[in-house]
Amino acid sequence: MRLSRYFLPTLKEDPKEAQIVSHRLMLRAGMIQQSSAGIYSWLPLGQRVLRNIEQVVREEQDRAGALEILMPTLQPADLWRESGRYDDYGKEMLRITDRHDRQMLYGPTNEEQVTDIFRSHVNSYKNLPLNLYHIQWKFRDEVRPRFGIMRGREFLMKDAYSFDLDFDGAKIAYNNMFVAYLKTFARLGLKAIPLRAATGPIGGDLSHEFIVLADTGESEVFYHKDLLSLETPDQASYSADELQAIVDKWTGYYAAADDMHDAAACDVAADDLVTRRGIEVGHIFHFGDKYSKIMGATVAGPDGKDVTVSMGSYGIGVSRLVGGIIEASHDYDGIIWPESVAPFKAGLINLKSGDEPCDQACDEFYGKLQGAGVEVLYDDTSGRAGEKFAKMDLIGLPWQATIGPRGVKSGIVEIKNRATGEKQELSADDALQLLAGRR
Amino acid sequence: MRLSRYFLPTLKEDPKEAQIVSHRLMLRAGMIQQSSAGIYSWLPLGQRVLRNIEQVVREEQDRAGALEILMPTLQPADLWRESGRYDDYGKEMLRITDRHDRQMLYGPTNEEQVTDIFRSHVNSYKNLPLNLYHIQWKFRDEVRPRFGIMRGREFLMKDAYSFDLDFDGAKIAYNNMFVAYLKTFARLGLKAIPLRAATGPIGGDLSHEFIVLADTGESEVFYHKDLLSLETPDQASYSADELQAIVDKWTGYYAAADDMHDAAACDVAADDLVTRRGIEVGHIFHFGDKYSKIMGATVAGPDGKDVTVSMGSYGIGVSRLVGGIIEASHDYDGIIWPESVAPFKAGLINLKSGDEPCDQACDEFYGKLQGAGVEVLYDDTSGRAGEKFAKMDLIGLPWQATIGPRGVKSGIVEIKNRATGEKQELSADDALQLLAGRR
Repeated sequence: MRLSRYFLPTLKEDPKEAQIVSHRLMLRAGMIQQSSAGIYSWLPLGQRVLRNIEQVVREEQDRAGALEILMPTLQPADLWRESGRYDDYGKEMLRITDRHDRQMLYGPTNEEQVTDIFRSHVNSYKNLPLNLYHIQWKFRDEVRPRFGIMRGREFLMKDAYSFDLDFDGAKIAYNNMFVAYLKTFARLGLKAIPLRAATGPIGGDLSHEFIVLADTGESEVFYHKDLLSLETPDQASYSADELQAIVDKWTGYYAAADDMHDAAACDVAADDLVTRRGIEVGHIFHFGDKYSKIMGATVAGPDGKDVTVSMGSYGIGVSRLVGGIIEASHDYDGIIWPESVAPFKAGLINLKSGDEPCDQACDEFYGKLQGAGVEVLYDDTSGRAGEKFAKMDLIGLPWQATIGPRGVKSGIVEIKNRATGEKQELSADDALQLLAGRR
Repeated sequence: MRLSRYFLPTLKEDPKEAQIVSHRLMLRAGMIQQSSAGIYSWLPLGQRVLRNIEQVVREEQDRAGALEILMPTLQPADLWRESGRYDDYGKEMLRITDRHDRQMLYGPTNEEQVTDIFRSHVNSYKNLPLNLYHIQWKFRDEVRPRFGIMRGREFLMKDAYSFDLDFDGAKIAYNNMFVAYLKTFARLGLKAIPLRAATGPIGGDLSHEFIVLADTGESEVFYHKDLLSLETPDQASYSADELQAIVDKWTGYYAAADDMHDAAACDVAADDLVTRRGIEVGHIFHFGDKYSKIMGATVAGPDGKDVTVSMGSYGIGVSRLVGGIIEASHDYDGIIWPESVAPFKAGLINLKSGDEPCDQACDEFYGKLQGAGVEVLYDDTSGRAGEKFAKMDLIGLPWQATIGPRGVKSGIVEIKNRATGEKQELSADDALQLLAGRR
C-alpha cells in the first residue's frame, strides 16, 4: 500500500481527551475516530489490526473444536424475560422499541439467544459435547464510557457457549477453552495470566479471568513470580487428562486480582509474590444449568430420560485487545505491534521522494516485497525524513526499510526492527529475504 | 469437519412459514434460525457462506483501491439532523434513546457518518481520490419483513463512499466501482446485469442497480438478449478511458426494471427483448455534493480555494446475496453452491458407518483431503445411505465423494458433481487429485 493513496490521519500532538496511552496512541496513529460517547469508527489502520486479532481468536476457537455461528445484535426482550434477566440487567442494557412497539434490546451478551438455538435443535446426548461461538458487536450502555475502545459502549467480543450432559463433560469443555485461551493470548504476543475470579451465586471454582500485564492496567494483580515462566501449551490437541494437567499447573500458582486477594490468607513468600497492574481481556465461566433449567434446554440421556444440559461461557474482548496490546507493547515513540496482529509487516521509507534514483529503487523494492507476499506500507510522500521516521515509529510496524540517496548508490537498504531498535544495512536481496521471513 | 461433531440441524419437511425457495432451503439446510421478525441467527453452515461472500466482496473492493474501515452500528441522531434526513427517514429508521436520553439510531446507511470522518481529516485535493468502504450490520425497520434474510430487518451490507474533487473524478470513481461490481458478481457465480436506476432529485445518469436473474425475483426486468453474452472484465486494473469503454459497452444495451421500463419508448426489437425476473443485489449511485455541501466537506483545491467534494455511494447486500445465489442456483433436491462461496468444497459420504473397512477407508480419504487443503464435510454418522445422499444434495456442496463396501474392495471412490449430476468412479488418488483441483 502506498501511503499517498492510503487514509492515515496521524496527529503530531497528543489529543487532550485521551487519558491512557492506548487511547492516545490509537488517536495519534489514525486508527480510530470517536462517533459518539464510547462509540468509535475504525479507520483503515485500526480496522486491519482489529481484523487480525479477530482472525487469531477465530483460528484458536476452531482448533479447539468450537463451531462458529453469528447471532444478531438485536434480541427480543421476551427471551430475556424467560431467563429473568430483562428486569435485572439495569441501565447498562440498551432497550429499544421497534415500529410495532415490540420491546427489543441490543445484546450485551448471548446466553439466552444461544440457549434458544440449542433447545430448538438439539434433542439427544449424542449431539454433545457442543460449543458454539460467535464474534459480534455488543453494546453496554456504560454510564461513563472512557479510555477509548478499552471501555466503550459498542464493542466487538468473541463469546463461546458450551453444552454438556453433566458436570464432568462441562469441566472438560472448560479446560479446553482455558488452554485455547493460553494459546490465543500467546499468539497475540501477550503475557496473559489466568486469575481465579468470583463465581457469583453459583459457587465452584470454574471461573477465571485472563489478565494482560501492563503498568497502566485498571486493576492490581498479585501472583507467584514463577507463573510467568510457564510454557504455553503448543500441541494441536490434548486428551481430557492432559487438559486437566495443564489447567492444574497454571492454576497451581497463586494469582488474584485486588478484589480477590487477601494478604492475610495468601501463603506465597513475600519474595515470590509479584504485584503489578493488569487489564482483563478474557473471562471463562462455568454456570451449570442456570439458563438451561429455566429455559428448558434438555436432551434425552443415554437412558432415554431428559437431562438439563450443563453450560459454560467463554468471552474474549476482541476490540478491547487492540488497546490491551498497545498498553502492553509501546514505547515513548509509539506502538510496537507483535507481528501476528500488525496492520502491515513492514514500512518502506523513501528518504527523498521525487528524486528519480530514490523513487526507482524504492518502487522496485516495493514491488519485490509485494511479490514475496510481504504486507508493506510504502511512504512515498513528499514529507521530511524526520517526519517519516516519526510516523513509522508511531504506527509501530514490526520492520522498517529505508532507502535514501546514499543507499541507492551502494545498493543498500537499512532495516530497523521496531521492537529492539536494532538497525542493519543490507543488500536489497538480503533485506527482502529478511522481511519475507526466509532467514 | 466430521458431521458427527458439526451442528447442522437440517429439516426433512418444508417449513410452512417460508414463501420463497431460498428461505425454504436455508431453513431446511440448517443455515439460519429466526430470532424475531426479520432478524436471524446464522448457524455454522450459513455463517460459512456469509463469510465467503463477504471475503469475495472485500477482495474486489480492495483490488479496486477502496480502503476498508468499520463504522459503528449505532449513530448519533445529531449527524442525521445535520443532513436533514433524521426527520425525513420515516419509520424504517430504528430510533434509540440511551440512558442519558441522547437520541441515537441503528444505521440504515452511512453517508452522514462517512462524510463526518472525511471532513474531520481530509483538507487537501492532494488526498483525493478517496474511496472508503465497510462491511457492517445495518437495520431497516421494515413494516413487513419477509422472505427470510432476503428482506430482513438486520442485514449485512458493504457500502463504499467515494470522494472526488469534481464530477470528472467522481465519474471515474463511479466507473471503477461499476467494473468492480461486474467482477464481484461473476466471482460469486452470478449473472448480474446493471440496470439504469432512478436517480431521484439529483438527476443525471450515474445510478445503476445490479440485478441477479432468478425466476423467483421480486421485480420484472427487460433487457436486450445480447447483454448476457458480454464478457466480464478480467484485468487487474484499467485506465480511466478503459473503465469508461467497459461501462459504455455494458450500458449500451437496453436494460430496465419494470418501474423504469416504458414499452412505448423501448426501441429494442421484440425478438431481442427478454423479460425475466430479478433480485437487486447492488446499487451504485453518484449524488454529487448532496451531503458534502450541507455538512461542509470541503478541501483546498489546487488554487488554494475551498472545493466541496463530489461523492458517490456503492452498496452490495452481502447477507441478501446468500438468498440471491440460492434463488439463482438450486434444483428440486436443494442448493447448488458455486465453488467460490460453498461452505465446504466437498462432502464425503461413508455409506456404512460402523463397518470397519468402510470407516478405515473413509477416515484415510478424509485425512488426505484435509492434508491437501480441501474443505470437506465428512458424513460419518450412522444414518441410512438414502438420507445421507439427500442431505448432501440439500446442502449443495459442489462435490460429493462416496465410499461404500463395494468401493472399499476395489479401491474406488464415487465422485458426483452437484451441479451437473455427473458421476465418476475413480481411484482414491485420482479422486483426491480431482477434488484438490489438480486435474
